[in-house]
Amino acid sequence: MPAPIPANLDRLATDARLLLEQLCRQPSIAAQNTGIAEMADLVEAEMRETGFTTRRFSIPGAPPILYGELKGGPYTVLLYDHYDVQPPEPLDLWESPAFEPTVRDGKLYARGTSDDKGEIATRLIAIRALREELGQLPITLKYIIEGEEEIGSPHFEEIIKPHAKLLKADGCLWEGDGFEPDGRPELGLGSKGLLYVQLDVQGTGKDAHSGGAPVLPSAAWRLVQALATLKTPKGHIRIPGFYDDVRPPTEAQLQALRDQPDTDAYMKESFQLDRFIDGLAGFELRKRQAFAPTCNIAGLTSGYGGEGSKTVLPAHAMAKIDFRLVPDQDPSDILAKLKAHLTANGYDDVRVTVFGNAEPVVTPIEEPFVQRISRIAHAFGDQQPSITPLFGGTLPLLGALRRHVGVPGLSVPGDPVYWANGAHSPNEHVRLEDLRRAVHFNWYLFQELGKK
Amino acid sequence: MPAPIPANLDRLATDARLLLEQLCRQPSIAAQNTGIAEMADLVEAEMRETGFTTRRFSIPGAPPILYGELKGGPYTVLLYDHYDVQPPEPLDLWESPAFEPTVRDGKLYARGTSDDKGEIATRLIAIRALREELGQLPITLKYIIEGEEEIGSPHFEEIIKPHAKLLKADGCLWEGDGFEPDGRPELGLGSKGLLYVQLDVQGTGKDAHSGGAPVLPSAAWRLVQALATLKTPKGHIRIPGFYDDVRPPTEAQLQALRDQPDTDAYMKESFQLDRFIDGLAGFELRKRQAFAPTCNIAGLTSGYGGEGSKTVLPAHAMAKIDFRLVPDQDPSDILAKLKAHLTANGYDDVRVTVFGNAEPVVTPIEEPFVQRISRIAHAFGDQQPSITPLFGGTLPLLGALRRHVGVPGLSVPGDPVYWANGAHSPNEHVRLEDLRRAVHFNWYLFQELGKK
Repeated sequence: MPAPIPANLDRLATDARLLLEQLCRQPSIAAQNTGIAEMADLVEAEMRETGFTTRRFSIPGAPPILYGELKGGPYTVLLYDHYDVQPPEPLDLWESPAFEPTVRDGKLYARGTSDDKGEIATRLIAIRALREELGQLPITLKYIIEGEEEIGSPHFEEIIKPHAKLLKADGCLWEGDGFEPDGRPELGLGSKGLLYVQLDVQGTGKDAHSGGAPVLPSAAWRLVQALATLKTPKGHIRIPGFYDDVRPPTEAQLQALRDQPDTDAYMKESFQLDRFIDGLAGFELRKRQAFAPTCNIAGLTSGYGGEGSKTVLPAHAMAKIDFRLVPDQDPSDILAKLKAHLTANGYDDVRVTVFGNAEPVVTPIEEPFVQRISRIAHAFGDQQPSITPLFGGTLPLLGALRRHVGVPGLSVPGDPVYWANGAHSPNEHVRLEDLRRAVHFNWYLFQELGKK
Repeated sequence: MPAPIPANLDRLATDARLLLEQLCRQPSIAAQNTGIAEMADLVEAEMRETGFTTRRFSIPGAPPILYGELKGGPYTVLLYDHYDVQPPEPLDLWESPAFEPTVRDGKLYARGTSDDKGEIATRLIAIRALREELGQLPITLKYIIEGEEEIGSPHFEEIIKPHAKLLKADGCLWEGDGFEPDGRPELGLGSKGLLYVQLDVQGTGKDAHSGGAPVLPSAAWRLVQALATLKTPKGHIRIPGFYDDVRPPTEAQLQALRDQPDTDAYMKESFQLDRFIDGLAGFELRKRQAFAPTCNIAGLTSGYGGEGSKTVLPAHAMAKIDFRLVPDQDPSDILAKLKAHLTANGYDDVRVTVFGNAEPVVTPIEEPFVQRISRIAHAFGDQQPSITPLFGGTLPLLGALRRHVGVPGLSVPGDPVYWANGAHSPNEHVRLEDLRRAVHFNWYLFQELGKK
């Protein structure tokens, strides 16, 4: 028997869209420090409008973490979201401007629609609906919304540490998950660790005419050759000791992956791809995706990038690399190993700057809060949830939450995301049907969690 | 015994500066198709003012090559210059506007002062002086001035081919050279060939969240790994057959390099450099610079290049590569070998686009025209000339001149250039003392060439 449906779901879905459009019209790009203060004001006002008593957790030089409390039944849930977004570049690939929310073909397009303003909107609208309907929430909510998630939550730990007691709860619902293409609710039990570094090489002091290439040091070649030592063409990461602390998946985790539906075709369509690495498919694809640590090139820049030719020998070359780490890899240990590897291979001149450092965090499938949420998610659409033991992405704040608050957490399908919503990419969007479904799910979940 | 000095040299130097200022006030940026037609009119008017009978060699869709003839003694010399300039960007690095000629500290600053309007000015002023003084030039001059040199002379061959007979001469003076820091006149006997290619790799169809890195193909890694196969960290180019056609330098060429003054310190200062590749210095440095073919990375672009971090798996990666080639390497052959190498190493997916293709051209030291010029240059200041058998840069037009006109050529110190004049860079300038010296040299050279 699937979950009941609120009588006014159409209006709630519209309200969620309007609120989401409002949130997305305000740019809030942490990497470029654009619109963050304005966004914090706007989100805090909407939290208050929803009934939360709010305050700000702040330290100098960082955007505030918004904290809201809304008292109801005794069961207490901590919610986490973020009000910042990724940079919108490359701008010319957007079909409508990144910060002008636009509906096309049943989808709402704008930076932040899926990551992560959509979930803020659906949670707030569901809470407003329940308060209107029931007078009081059946559970007590604590809500933290930060402003630096997209740059790796660099101040999260320092900001929340003094408030750890305040954040105690029976469980935490992280930034959220959606539904599989076959309609099964998704639960996410962990996120990979991250080490994000920038590698810089300086060759000559200024750009030179490329006629000098026989005798002038080349920053670009130096960088390419240093990078080539990091990984074999087959994908094996060559930093000594990189794989030492990789913990093998448990049988329950592997079983969860076996039970998931195949979404290979959707992923191929989403990424406009003919073939995954090594021709992977099905369970083997999901297993590699969940449990393989990575060394990804997120950016490469040197010299002339325009049309046609310019015969220049660039003075400087830069690469951005992100390592995604699995339990029990430690980002600081991997950084030390990376530096040792560069030194051992004679690349002492490659300057390493760290822009992100987060540990992998996994909640066991056996955890009671996970089991409870799993039953509610199952009941919602009368379909078994699809459990991902470890996501490819990183929520750097989870390590701090685990260390200081100690609350078990997971992501649930209260976010209007789906497999092709283009998070972090041009034309990010949500489907309006998912927005409606997410409001419905949050409305159901918050009620069910209030029951014994 | 050094060369005589014209009685009115002060006035000639002033005239050259005024003419150069006039030429530089008119932008003529081939890459941006700016001011080219106006510049052609202006230069043609100045050629006529000097006494040349002019005409235009034209094809549809390309700026004209200006052709001028000025009859005098029977010995016939072909002069080559170009009236276009490099783009002035980055504009904010100019201390005075690029197209507002400005004198500071005995230097004239503007785009084109050294490359190559300065030489047009000094040649025209020297010719005017000789005609005024002698009534008639002691030699016959043919002068071609093109408008696309800075974008690789893409139409030069097609335009001059029908006029090849008209261009026959006893020798050709290319775009010019200057004086060494120790005052020795410079002669340049050749320019390297060029193969300029862009390498493009497409991984996924669109940018992805880097959390997908375990299973998604990476364009950036693919490009880095393809590039790494092209060259060893020590600088050896690994494309099979790349060095097959490299002709070893002759003893005369090596002797010319041995006889050149050391300019290592000036070059280090110019490039803000502590050390050349492999710690090279002196003769070994000059030998490597002259005779080594290169594979230079002129540009690298993929993913995020901004501040801080963005966790993206870029869909596309691009490199721009310029190969500088020495005799008898052939750019079309090197292109075929590059493609074969990529295929043999499994990089068929790396797309190769050609943006430049020019053969190396070298005039032998033993050539009588070179020997004659060399004696005149020696006599000018009673100092042995400094002979560079092969420059690091490329003059793509030289191949067409050799094939169709067959006239032996070289560059001579009639250009007001010096080691730090910032050609192709912000704050391009000439020293006023070099302008004066270049007028003097041209005045002397044209007279001496008229003698038996």
